[in-house]
Amino acid sequence: MSAAQSVKPGTLHGVGLGPGDPDLMTVRARRLLEGARHVAYFRKAGRKGHALTIAEDFLPKDAIHFPMEYPVTTEIPLGDPRYNEALSEFYAQVTMHLRALLISGEDVVVPCEGDPFFYGSFMHIYERLKDVVPVEVTPAVTGMSAAWTASGHPITWGDDVLTVLMATLPEEVLTARMRDADALVVMKIGRNMAKVRTALRAAGLYDRAWLVEYASQEGQTVQRLRDAGEGITPYFSIVLVHGQGRRP
Amino acid sequence: MSAAQSVKPGTLHGVGLGPGDPDLMTVRARRLLEGARHVAYFRKAGRKGHALTIAEDFLPKDAIHFPMEYPVTTEIPLGDPRYNEALSEFYAQVTMHLRALLISGEDVVVPCEGDPFFYGSFMHIYERLKDVVPVEVTPAVTGMSAAWTASGHPITWGDDVLTVLMATLPEEVLTARMRDADALVVMKIGRNMAKVRTALRAAGLYDRAWLVEYASQEGQTVQRLRDAGEGITPYFSIVLVHGQGRRP
Repeated sequence: MSAAQSVKPGTLHGVGLGPGDPDLMTVRARRLLEGARHVAYFRKAGRKGHALTIAEDFLPKDAIHFPMEYPVTTEIPLGDPRYNEALSEFYAQVTMHLRALLISGEDVVVPCEGDPFFYGSFMHIYERLKDVVPVEVTPAVTGMSAAWTASGHPITWGDDVLTVLMATLPEEVLTARMRDADALVVMKIGRNMAKVRTALRAAGLYDRAWLVEYASQEGQTVQRLRDAGEGITPYFSIVLVHGQGRRP
Repeated sequence: MSAAQSVKPGTLHGVGLGPGDPDLMTVRARRLLEGARHVAYFRKAGRKGHALTIAEDFLPKDAIHFPMEYPVTTEIPLGDPRYNEALSEFYAQVTMHLRALLISGEDVVVPCEGDPFFYGSFMHIYERLKDVVPVEVTPAVTGMSAAWTASGHPITWGDDVLTVLMATLPEEVLTARMRDADALVVMKIGRNMAKVRTALRAAGLYDRAWLVEYASQEGQTVQRLRDAGEGITPYFSIVLVHGQGRRP
């Protein structure tokens, strides 16, 4: 056995950063960032990226950065097979890079917006590396928790059923799911705001819906959806309908 | 105006502790606990209580404790009107006590298991005091996030719909909701395990279900539900069915 083969592989850390406010990071996340030597994060090409923006104040000045830049975000529709192809190739490439670092014995910290295992990009590198090197995942406060906290109203009471929907779903699916919901969270609003409004109206929930933008971050807004303008809202907006279940 | 009337009221802090591991507390929660002078927490009479167990290492030694002891937990069925009456009277009493403290100018910290606005007991005192004194709520990592992280599998992919159910719901409601779920979380299992198993079987999800007990805490277990014994599992067990949505 050669010396190279005997190196113990490093650990891949998927570190949930929470909704954006650095005060809402977990103690473990803060410690992992502060101790990072290699840091890798997703971002849109040409942007600083939201994960780095949240994490950077806590990273050592000499940490080695590996930005993982999406080849596409909204340029190709989700349903187009080229979208999946481009992303699949991208994940394969970044995984190869991370794998080499990890196998050489280096730990790698991947700061992730929100909670890594809840609709997160980290999941794609996790699935490709979990059987190759040790992986540790640190859960986090979700963006939806920050949103319902900011709204000033508890999201679920008693036996309320909570339904979490992506606004990217077809309108008829959104409507059907909304009709069944006691408490509702709709994420990834962005360009889908008009569709979400139509579905909420069809489901009879429009007047109970709230819109939270930039939850826990600078620029946070909280308003009744019916009072919000018709413009496109940021991708990370969240729509809420609070449950009305049993309460003594 | 008398001197007494000019006192500025204290702030009621609902502080989410997260799933149990003190390392998964937020930085803000840790700081609020460390600075607490008055601390109030729910517990079953005769028990230390889970919230205090998680929080106590961070509370000042001279903090003044106000345990809020439930008059009933499982002795009276949820559907019995006496359950609601007993709890309503209980919340009125503890609110009166907290109100007096707050009006006198004292801040009160209420450490809460999980996330305060997600099926939490804090919500009941929040609703009774939010228009009387300043209230600040600190969101937290949910028990379900800790559970899906412990399971080693991401809970939601792509456009998966997440459904969160309380096991206290009737079997036919559980079955119908499970049939519609892409990704599923079932909480408050306790004495309802047999009903949950029956509903999962009827919905065709039994073989994909996982059981996580004591997520992020001492004694954590993670297993396929079909491999778990038939015994009653702890109240804070969580059943998961992971989504299988789009992934490049």
